[in-house]
Amino acid sequence: MKIEILCTGDEILTGKTVNTNYSHIARRLTENGFHTTWGTVVGDDPDSLVRAFHLAAQRADAVIVNGGLGPTVDDLSQQAAAQAAGVELELFRQWLDRIEAWYISRGREMPSSNVKQAMLPAGSQWIDNPVGTACGFAMDMGSARFFFTPGVPAELKRMLEDQILPRLHGMRGQPVFTRIKRFHTFGIGEARADRILDGVEDLAGDGSVKLGFQSHYPQLEIKLTLHGTSQAELDRKIMPVENEVRKRLGNFILCEDDQLLEKEIIRALQQAGSSVSVVEMHTAGRVTARLVGAADHAECVKSGMVSVDVGQLLKYAGIAEPVSREPDRQLAVCLADAIQARCDASHVLVTLVKPLDRQDGGKYAADIAVAISDGKGGDCRTSRLPGSPEWVRLGAVELALDSLRRYLSGLPATERIDSELR
Amino acid sequence: MKIEILCTGDEILTGKTVNTNYSHIARRLTENGFHTTWGTVVGDDPDSLVRAFHLAAQRADAVIVNGGLGPTVDDLSQQAAAQAAGVELELFRQWLDRIEAWYISRGREMPSSNVKQAMLPAGSQWIDNPVGTACGFAMDMGSARFFFTPGVPAELKRMLEDQILPRLHGMRGQPVFTRIKRFHTFGIGEARADRILDGVEDLAGDGSVKLGFQSHYPQLEIKLTLHGTSQAELDRKIMPVENEVRKRLGNFILCEDDQLLEKEIIRALQQAGSSVSVVEMHTAGRVTARLVGAADHAECVKSGMVSVDVGQLLKYAGIAEPVSREPDRQLAVCLADAIQARCDASHVLVTLVKPLDRQDGGKYAADIAVAISDGKGGDCRTSRLPGSPEWVRLGAVELALDSLRRYLSGLPATERIDSELR
Repeated sequence: MKIEILCTGDEILTGKTVNTNYSHIARRLTENGFHTTWGTVVGDDPDSLVRAFHLAAQRADAVIVNGGLGPTVDDLSQQAAAQAAGVELELFRQWLDRIEAWYISRGREMPSSNVKQAMLPAGSQWIDNPVGTACGFAMDMGSARFFFTPGVPAELKRMLEDQILPRLHGMRGQPVFTRIKRFHTFGIGEARADRILDGVEDLAGDGSVKLGFQSHYPQLEIKLTLHGTSQAELDRKIMPVENEVRKRLGNFILCEDDQLLEKEIIRALQQAGSSVSVVEMHTAGRVTARLVGAADHAECVKSGMVSVDVGQLLKYAGIAEPVSREPDRQLAVCLADAIQARCDASHVLVTLVKPLDRQDGGKYAADIAVAISDGKGGDCRTSRLPGSPEWVRLGAVELALDSLRRYLSGLPATERIDSELR
Repeated sequence: MKIEILCTGDEILTGKTVNTNYSHIARRLTENGFHTTWGTVVGDDPDSLVRAFHLAAQRADAVIVNGGLGPTVDDLSQQAAAQAAGVELELFRQWLDRIEAWYISRGREMPSSNVKQAMLPAGSQWIDNPVGTACGFAMDMGSARFFFTPGVPAELKRMLEDQILPRLHGMRGQPVFTRIKRFHTFGIGEARADRILDGVEDLAGDGSVKLGFQSHYPQLEIKLTLHGTSQAELDRKIMPVENEVRKRLGNFILCEDDQLLEKEIIRALQQAGSSVSVVEMHTAGRVTARLVGAADHAECVKSGMVSVDVGQLLKYAGIAEPVSREPDRQLAVCLADAIQARCDASHVLVTLVKPLDRQDGGKYAADIAVAISDGKGGDCRTSRLPGSPEWVRLGAVELALDSLRRYLSGLPATERIDSELR
């Protein structure tokens, strides 16, 4: 089945808005086992719209049209669709009532321009939009079934999931279920992950599981995709593959699916009745930001102290005579212990970055020192990371959070990671 | 002149990669006074590519093709272009020498697959790519001039600026220069900005200056765009408009063009030989992150203290008997003064957020208290902001930074902003 995506609107055409609706639709189609074969972008121009509809009608089995269902004069999708199909626009009374009720419930009067949103091409089938005033609809043109969706991302997403994907599954005939299993890892490069996971798909027995990688530096996402005719079939086929991936990647898996590393840390702290205070240098406050952001109103992140000044950090720790004034392993451990002793948190995480002079070949690098103290003990991790200052910062933040995750789970914090120099 | 953009590649077609190359090309075309009339996305499929080339060749005067110039088997642009035009591929010796030299300079041998990158359709004109191994080229098909560009964003951007835009200007005949003047504001909504700036374009005298708005909450960007036949003409026409915008928007302008609010603050601190320490609550460490990130290795951001726990903040400030334990105006001022007295920074910026219970209609809101102390005096700003917790956080961070900017410039920090409830 050939599916096309047709995005409309001057904001998209002229690049004012990045076309994330396109990538969302295409990604969801792929994840559901469908093939996107063509993408088109046209502006709010009747001739272009009609032309684009005619072209897609010749090529595709299904076309998802996005945008142009709003109340303003430059929203032209219904009108152009009617023109392209050679039919009239008709008032869809039921939808007009819905829009009016929507306005009344908000204590406002419906502007007369909204009537336009209830005008659909004759013979089309309406598609519900429970979160907005734009009415979706489906109609046939040429050899293709066209699905018209609103440009507002939240409305599009809802309609795509609840209304369009099920209809496409229906068109395809056989029921197809999809499973996407994701592992988020840190420390393994794509080439090594590929080697480590060699042959893992074969455990499904029938080549139905597809292995993929997506790098979001410093994390690497590992994805298993599988289509089948029932959820039970998917469970049965993916289970051995999933278990094997977990076994082979081991400690390098940060979390799975929609989980986040920082949320995993918060969960581990909460389960143990623990809490953390953070100290960081040259990481732009991002270790704190990640943890505080994940904790929301949780109390287990007590505080974050951010400074590029060793003197400030020593003062904060109440250390008058430091063992070191360099942001190194010694200083990190000493700060972690001293702060742990005087603060209210059970754990202290210290992250220090020492930028190095330009390395050979003009490449930047930095030494990272991460120390964790919980009063009874602790751990320390050092690493040399290459890359631009921003690249190093990204790596250092992840290294710090991963060290804390590992410490809280009783895993070794010092396993070598692929991106480090030493 | 009708210009189309044709993006190729399975990663784009299937939505794995968001098509930012498209929006970059389209935006730069718009900013240079050109009109993008159509956008196409096709995958790494020879038939689709040939079909897409033929369609664009009938519709457009110029087509910018992006992607498919790499060394791997799924890079098909040259081959499909040759097929579509009915010509052969020919080795472009000069480019092959360039690639070989590129590899040698890096101490590596050129893989034989790279030879493919030096094969161009017969009769095409090569376009230089000084930052990569993919050779750009231009050729005619149908009524259109096609420009082939690499998919790597940095290579595309360089080629577009240095090679493609000048050629398009040449095709258009008359020289066209473009000026884009941008103002970044905080506190004025789009509707009010539109009213305040009513008629401002007319000061150019000939309707050549276009006013536009782009909302990046919590900032609003105001853009003046102008095309003309010389830089001197642009200077003359935009000057009165630019000055009038500055006059009317006054204190609400944070910075202009490529400047950033946080960098402006760093500049002001450095000029005055001042420094700042930050304390923040419920803003996820972002005030600190913005300032530390902008300062890079500057010493004027002494430290940032992030906590959601009033007790921690009082302890940090050395306050044993607080006037208030609520994150309100009193506490903010008292923390700012106490911390200023004991820290090394000349200025202290305190940002406290107190989330309110759900407001009527299920809407969230929060009270923000920002206090600044510099030992000699200070300022305090309170505000009630509506919106989701994340929306409030964004607003609170901007309010805090704007208050500091205003304080450092001697401007009132308490001017009402459009988005606040009170």
